[in-house]
Amino acid sequence: MSTERVMKIFSLNSNRPLAEKIAKTVGIPLSNVGVNHFADGEIQIEINESVRGADVYVIQSDSRPVNENFMELMIMIDALRRASAASITVVLPYFGYARADHKNRSREPITAKMIANMIEMDGADRVVTLDLHTAQLEGFFDIPVDNLRAMPLLALYFLENHLTENTVVVSPDHGSVKDARKLAEMLHLPIAITDPIDGDIDVIGDVDGKNAIIIDDMIDTGTRMASTAAALKAHGAKEISAAATHAVFSEGVAAKLESPFIKRVVITDSIKIAPENQLDKLIQISVGSLLGKAIRNIHENKSVGAIFEAEAAEVEHY
Amino acid sequence: MSTERVMKIFSLNSNRPLAEKIAKTVGIPLSNVGVNHFADGEIQIEINESVRGADVYVIQSDSRPVNENFMELMIMIDALRRASAASITVVLPYFGYARADHKNRSREPITAKMIANMIEMDGADRVVTLDLHTAQLEGFFDIPVDNLRAMPLLALYFLENHLTENTVVVSPDHGSVKDARKLAEMLHLPIAITDPIDGDIDVIGDVDGKNAIIIDDMIDTGTRMASTAAALKAHGAKEISAAATHAVFSEGVAAKLESPFIKRVVITDSIKIAPENQLDKLIQISVGSLLGKAIRNIHENKSVGAIFEAEAAEVEHY
Amino acid sequence: MSTERVMKIFSLNSNRPLAEKIAKTVGIPLSNVGVNHFADGEIQIEINESVRGADVYVIQSDSRPVNENFMELMIMIDALRRASAASITVVLPYFGYARADHKNRSREPITAKMIANMIEMDGADRVVTLDLHTAQLEGFFDIPVDNLRAMPLLALYFLENHLTENTVVVSPDHGSVKDARKLAEMLHLPIAITDPIDGDIDVIGDVDGKNAIIIDDMIDTGTRMASTAAALKAHGAKEISAAATHAVFSEGVAAKLESPFIKRVVITDSIKIAPENQLDKLIQISVGSLLGKAIRNIHENKSVGAIFEAEAAEVEHY
Amino acid sequence: MSTERVMKIFSLNSNRPLAEKIAKTVGIPLSNVGVNHFADGEIQIEINESVRGADVYVIQSDSRPVNENFMELMIMIDALRRASAASITVVLPYFGYARADHKNRSREPITAKMIANMIEMDGADRVVTLDLHTAQLEGFFDIPVDNLRAMPLLALYFLENHLTENTVVVSPDHGSVKDARKLAEMLHLPIAITDPIDGDIDVIGDVDGKNAIIIDDMIDTGTRMASTAAALKAHGAKEISAAATHAVFSEGVAAKLESPFIKRVVITDSIKIAPENQLDKLIQISVGSLLGKAIRNIHENKSVGAIFEAEAAEVEHY
Amino acid sequence: MSTERVMKIFSLNSNRPLAEKIAKTVGIPLSNVGVNHFADGEIQIEINESVRGADVYVIQSDSRPVNENFMELMIMIDALRRASAASITVVLPYFGYARADHKNRSREPITAKMIANMIEMDGADRVVTLDLHTAQLEGFFDIPVDNLRAMPLLALYFLENHLTENTVVVSPDHGSVKDARKLAEMLHLPIAITDPIDGDIDVIGDVDGKNAIIIDDMIDTGTRMASTAAALKAHGAKEISAAATHAVFSEGVAAKLESPFIKRVVITDSIKIAPENQLDKLIQISVGSLLGKAIRNIHENKSVGAIFEAEAAEVEHY
Amino acid sequence: MSTERVMKIFSLNSNRPLAEKIAKTVGIPLSNVGVNHFADGEIQIEINESVRGADVYVIQSDSRPVNENFMELMIMIDALRRASAASITVVLPYFGYARADHKNRSREPITAKMIANMIEMDGADRVVTLDLHTAQLEGFFDIPVDNLRAMPLLALYFLENHLTENTVVVSPDHGSVKDARKLAEMLHLPIAITDPIDGDIDVIGDVDGKNAIIIDDMIDTGTRMASTAAALKAHGAKEISAAATHAVFSEGVAAKLESPFIKRVVITDSIKIAPENQLDKLIQISVGSLLGKAIRNIHENKSVGAIFEAEAAEVEHY
Repeated sequence: MSTERVMKIFSLNSNRPLAEKIAKTVGIPLSNVGVNHFADGEIQIEINESVRGADVYVIQSDSRPVNENFMELMIMIDALRRASAASITVVLPYFGYARADHKNRSREPITAKMIANMIEMDGADRVVTLDLHTAQLEGFFDIPVDNLRAMPLLALYFLENHLTENTVVVSPDHGSVKDARKLAEMLHLPIAITDPIDGDIDVIGDVDGKNAIIIDDMIDTGTRMASTAAALKAHGAKEISAAATHAVFSEGVAAKLESPFIKRVVITDSIKIAPENQLDKLIQISVGSLLGKAIRNIHENKSVGAIFEAEAAEVEHY
Repeated sequence: MSTERVMKIFSLNSNRPLAEKIAKTVGIPLSNVGVNHFADGEIQIEINESVRGADVYVIQSDSRPVNENFMELMIMIDALRRASAASITVVLPYFGYARADHKNRSREPITAKMIANMIEMDGADRVVTLDLHTAQLEGFFDIPVDNLRAMPLLALYFLENHLTENTVVVSPDHGSVKDARKLAEMLHLPIAITDPIDGDIDVIGDVDGKNAIIIDDMIDTGTRMASTAAALKAHGAKEISAAATHAVFSEGVAAKLESPFIKRVVITDSIKIAPENQLDKLIQISVGSLLGKAIRNIHENKSVGAIFEAEAAEVEHY
Repeated sequence: MSTERVMKIFSLNSNRPLAEKIAKTVGIPLSNVGVNHFADGEIQIEINESVRGADVYVIQSDSRPVNENFMELMIMIDALRRASAASITVVLPYFGYARADHKNRSREPITAKMIANMIEMDGADRVVTLDLHTAQLEGFFDIPVDNLRAMPLLALYFLENHLTENTVVVSPDHGSVKDARKLAEMLHLPIAITDPIDGDIDVIGDVDGKNAIIIDDMIDTGTRMASTAAALKAHGAKEISAAATHAVFSEGVAAKLESPFIKRVVITDSIKIAPENQLDKLIQISVGSLLGKAIRNIHENKSVGAIFEAEAAEVEHY
Repeated sequence: MSTERVMKIFSLNSNRPLAEKIAKTVGIPLSNVGVNHFADGEIQIEINESVRGADVYVIQSDSRPVNENFMELMIMIDALRRASAASITVVLPYFGYARADHKNRSREPITAKMIANMIEMDGADRVVTLDLHTAQLEGFFDIPVDNLRAMPLLALYFLENHLTENTVVVSPDHGSVKDARKLAEMLHLPIAITDPIDGDIDVIGDVDGKNAIIIDDMIDTGTRMASTAAALKAHGAKEISAAATHAVFSEGVAAKLESPFIKRVVITDSIKIAPENQLDKLIQISVGSLLGKAIRNIHENKSVGAIFEAEAAEVEHY
Repeated sequence: MSTERVMKIFSLNSNRPLAEKIAKTVGIPLSNVGVNHFADGEIQIEINESVRGADVYVIQSDSRPVNENFMELMIMIDALRRASAASITVVLPYFGYARADHKNRSREPITAKMIANMIEMDGADRVVTLDLHTAQLEGFFDIPVDNLRAMPLLALYFLENHLTENTVVVSPDHGSVKDARKLAEMLHLPIAITDPIDGDIDVIGDVDGKNAIIIDDMIDTGTRMASTAAALKAHGAKEISAAATHAVFSEGVAAKLESPFIKRVVITDSIKIAPENQLDKLIQISVGSLLGKAIRNIHENKSVGAIFEAEAAEVEHY
Repeated sequence: MSTERVMKIFSLNSNRPLAEKIAKTVGIPLSNVGVNHFADGEIQIEINESVRGADVYVIQSDSRPVNENFMELMIMIDALRRASAASITVVLPYFGYARADHKNRSREPITAKMIANMIEMDGADRVVTLDLHTAQLEGFFDIPVDNLRAMPLLALYFLENHLTENTVVVSPDHGSVKDARKLAEMLHLPIAITDPIDGDIDVIGDVDGKNAIIIDDMIDTGTRMASTAAALKAHGAKEISAAATHAVFSEGVAAKLESPFIKRVVITDSIKIAPENQLDKLIQISVGSLLGKAIRNIHENKSVGAIFEAEAAEVEHY
């Protein structure tokens, strides 16, 4: 038998433009799969080429419609496993339900863990993902997870566009302070925190007369970015940038981001952005090359951590 | 401690009218759960009363939107398990993806098995369902499954309305012959089969000058019922009834069922019927009492098979 | 280390002649295993060559004595797993207990699912089988299953022997209609169905003055073939052939098949036929080459579905 | 609902006389199950009464035909689990394949572990067994195992029949020395060991002019008992008794046990003895009461270890 | 059988004083278990009373020596499961390895997940714990987890001792901001954050002239508390209290906490404090009653969340 | 991608000298891993080179401190699995808790099984070990186990040093008789057994005027070796050697082994011997070459059993 392990990359429906960028980086075309949604809502998958003995990578962002996209992925994994794929790597540029990673109240589900359990139970061998909402999510899996970081790409944008002078990095709530701290270190900037309490937003730290970069892992409804920007403005901030990895962009987000207090929104293409949300102030940075390099390294048994180190070094030596 | 095991019944979003009928038969009110769909499409479940140590029954038809309804169910099970429910019984009046129970071609998924695996993995202890598409689906689970039968209820309708004279029971394709055979036995009628081949529909068996009851487990797009009725008409059939358990009713079904060849459509409430599909010729028989009795027997450790036997006897002695 | 994956084929006791045909097609000799049955009934397996790192294929038909043969298989898998085989493919030309795939009554087991669970739990990585009793059985497994089809081989026999003129394909009961439909399509023939009801056998469809091919997936006691043939004869059929994949052939089958109404019995060698059942009218078609090709394709990571397509094309272009 | 947990005891085919003794001790009749072996060798189980919510005990000795009896048990467990039994306790008076508990050579299976895995995977909640071949077998399970001891019953026989004067307890090989030591302690006797080496049997320890009790956990072919007795005789032993728990009794055992050197054979009814092996010198001690007491204590959540202590005390205070 | 479920509470070696307080609250004595550490380091467990059918609670803080204490717990669970306990609830007042809940670098383990997997695999049915390091840890388990909160007890201390005037709650790093926010809300106080960066500690927010409460989930080496207190002092803070749930207290902690900048250290008894760390400024608040109430509610199938609500209400209405 | 599978060997803390001997035999250097024990007792593992796609061998004797060493191993496996090692082989020269392989009394754990379960659950693919306490331990695993034998190495020592004349091999209790039998066969010597009973030690078999080799699988406290030697001396034995594979050597062992009745102690380096136990009479035989050869054969898919056969042949042909 041939000992060369064949690699195949499939894209499901959620983010085909990103999948094409990934495949281009890897240097092979996307393989042929048909995904149909029947009149009764059921999903049908047709894999149109043999995957027997192949190392298969499936690209799917679990973005809106999150349940449809998740079920597409689950059904695809089932089909691949039954079709004798040698290994199945799930590439999740965005992990849906990531915020449901703990119980806020009694009798809540921990949906993110359930999602992880299902992916594992269904037969995935490895997960490649990007900027998980919390680092602990990696532990929700027992299979290997490669959690890539978009932050160096975001940092590079600010460096290359000379936006780091007299600037403060702002965490829009208590949960994002670590991310703010990391970006601040990359850009050699101080941090501040906004503290939403009883309807008001307090600003802890000094922002008066400074430019600000609000950093979060995702922008969903845009409400937090808009109200944080307003609060910073009220405390004397000048030009304000909003930055995040995942453009979740729920209905109504455009109106929020159009806030005059927000100068620009820097975001990645981990989620495909709907036409109505393609604002002029939106700057979209591609993670296609990053994910492509990761897949290539995985297939060649090279370190994936080394990619992050190289990126961080690029930022450091800018 | 109290040794009395408490029973709680929850309804998710897909078929609350049926859930209320079930609860009424059992004799307890539906428990309090909130199901929200966020702007980004994620589902949130709030169980508003303690389920610790309780035997919980969750009612959800996995009908359109099938993926949303399935994920509601999965998230609910996760929440119940983490909230220390003593047992979780999933009541699935309609099992979505049931037709994806085998591979028609290479590299197809077997989605119905995946659904069963997920329900089991998520922590369900038992499944109560109705007229599974194929009997083998029961074996997709390793937990106990109680597969109830609506056929005696359908048979009773035809008996009570004197619709069984000079009548033949028709299977609309090769897969439903067993069901036609069973209904025919209950009504003491002969059977015929329609055989779709190369676009044409052949009729095997004698239907000339007879009334016909076309029996299937579900009506989805309605195409098969309409074309079977037309073929029967062409072969001399007189009054034609369409009967099935599950009103899957995909978009466009109303136009198909409005076929002049179909006199009436007899269906159950295992799936909630949208207003636009509430045709005049539709006769809806409730399975609420049947499911309610099953839950009560399960909770009291009585035989569920006995319910079917009682129903069959009622048909026999009509 | 050597990267060439070694392949080994072992035959257990149930059908060594078929195993030798398979091995011949693959082009390697059968490997050396000893299977002893002790005086107390316990089975002992001795694998007489190293399997470390090898892709192992174990051939065993789960035919009579079905429990002995199944336990031989289970013990062999245990031994192979502990001996560090790289992968274990179970080749089951006949899957015993396949008819126990659903519950006919309350409190019945679903033994076919239990068999599947055991094979999977014991460490098998893949199953290769032939004409499963129902397609749903594939879903009883979560490991890949390659379910080969003998029907093109049976069809070719009838074509090559000019037995398809003025002929109808007959399903001997409601469960085999799909198979009859498929064979009929291959041979461009109509179908008919016999309908056993209350001791009588009704014939649905036109058989008068025609030759008939009764098709089933297996012949067990032979009663159904004999009584179907008699019913067809009574309805005017001329020459009647009985065809099936699996020669289960329980005690007494020879007497049944000797029925004067049955002209010939076409069967495969998926099960080894006992000398007392080697009737003159028996035509045995080997599936050894089919199974051998499948194993070769699996080992070379080629499509197995392609084998079926090639066979079907051969029938089509006959 | 009723909070009283119902208990049901079923007997399969291998040892119904013992099952009846057990049921009598427990004080309830055996429940109704039908076990059929079809012409093709497949086993069919019919449970003829509801087990929903019941604590079920299934009695089956895994004796000859060991594979048939084991499969009966597996199929019964599958049926009980699917029929919603609250708990399933497997009562295995004799655990077949127990000697296959380690590898003597490379590439051997460890069949006893596979048997344990299957029982557990199939859904058994607990195992009650008797004198496992090695104590480590208990660890092959992760579910609770109650391993009862027949030795006090054997010891009592020798005490009650005044057979312990000037007597030595003999282990017939190196693996049974621990058992010999235990019986010797109960009877306050010395031990000796026979050491089969290169065809000869050496006797280590003093047996000249003494009576001897050869103790083993089972008698299979009887060869070891016969040759040990002959060796003891050659070394001057007088009256020799053979004692063991399990009467495996393979073909030819009667001739071996008829050896003039063996005065009596003391055995239990853990395995049903075939008529042709009912020798005059056979003394059969029932373990029915012991197993019955264990089941009763388990059902009443009382200590099972206490039964052994009571028995040992009875021996001590004889 | 008796339907009353018996409850038993066992304490292992790590924190017997707390276990006794818990048992006192529940109202039953601790059950009898012996835990020996052999000369070779192996642990032996002897459960000296029957647990058959009992609901068992095992109390063990996984504090120093963390591996010994964890293995004691694992071995105890194994023994309980094999001894037929009806359910096993692990009471972990302190969850060791909780900080190893994510990967900081490539190729790190996620030991907290491994610990959770082991507890679950070993047969625990439920975990009761206190102030998990991160809320996501609950999702590391698939069994129910009751994560109690000591914060209301800490808040009450500050309220009852009138220590909340002109005071700010301080998070000693970015990871504890949420906890600081919660305590601040309970005490109606503002928050500040210290930001350790490049060896320096920046203070974000206003502490000048105020008293400060530094809140963390645990105190390990004491270094962070000491340096935070020093930084606050340098920024003008007056009286400084250190508060935390878990007194991990590694070697050298006493010297750090003796810092003149720290006025008092408020801590719970979730971990037993060694004599050498019993400082005068240490105020120890017992969680025994809290844990005892939780166990009682669990056993009586009452809500555990209600305990937290009652506590929070007590703080609110102080 | 490169198809060459890379092999990496890591040593944890328990027996680095042996690991280096193993690596030398294999012919590659030990890979780089850091193992830290924090002040609070938690273990941290840092794998300092990529293991992605590599076949990894981890060497750790589970000797004193047994729980620390076991947890090091567990955490290392977790890290390797998450770091995408292609396979993980655990090399356990000494398997701790091996004597806890059965229940001596009610409610005891079977810790050796729990250890096996944990190793398997954590993701190990294979275990290589040496002289397991009982052969049944192999069956505690379902993954492949290669249980190597040091006995030929011990036998060779006695042969090469001409210590086998007029000698008897002695089993120091009933459990080691099989080992004594095997060594005796290798050296063509008779056996004897010591029988500890009520404080006394009886000697069964003839030792008067002979040299003796006491053989056991391990020496723990040394008490048994010393008292056996004393008993043999009292029965007339001359020069007495103690031999065993595993130098467990608990505290106080040196004093016991200094017994004047013991001439020499022959032991392997499966466990690292503390300086205070390096007695003059100690002869340590390395198993490094044996384990190294086994790893090499495993990696090259060659038989491991062949190594034992070669060793046994070397003894035979001495």
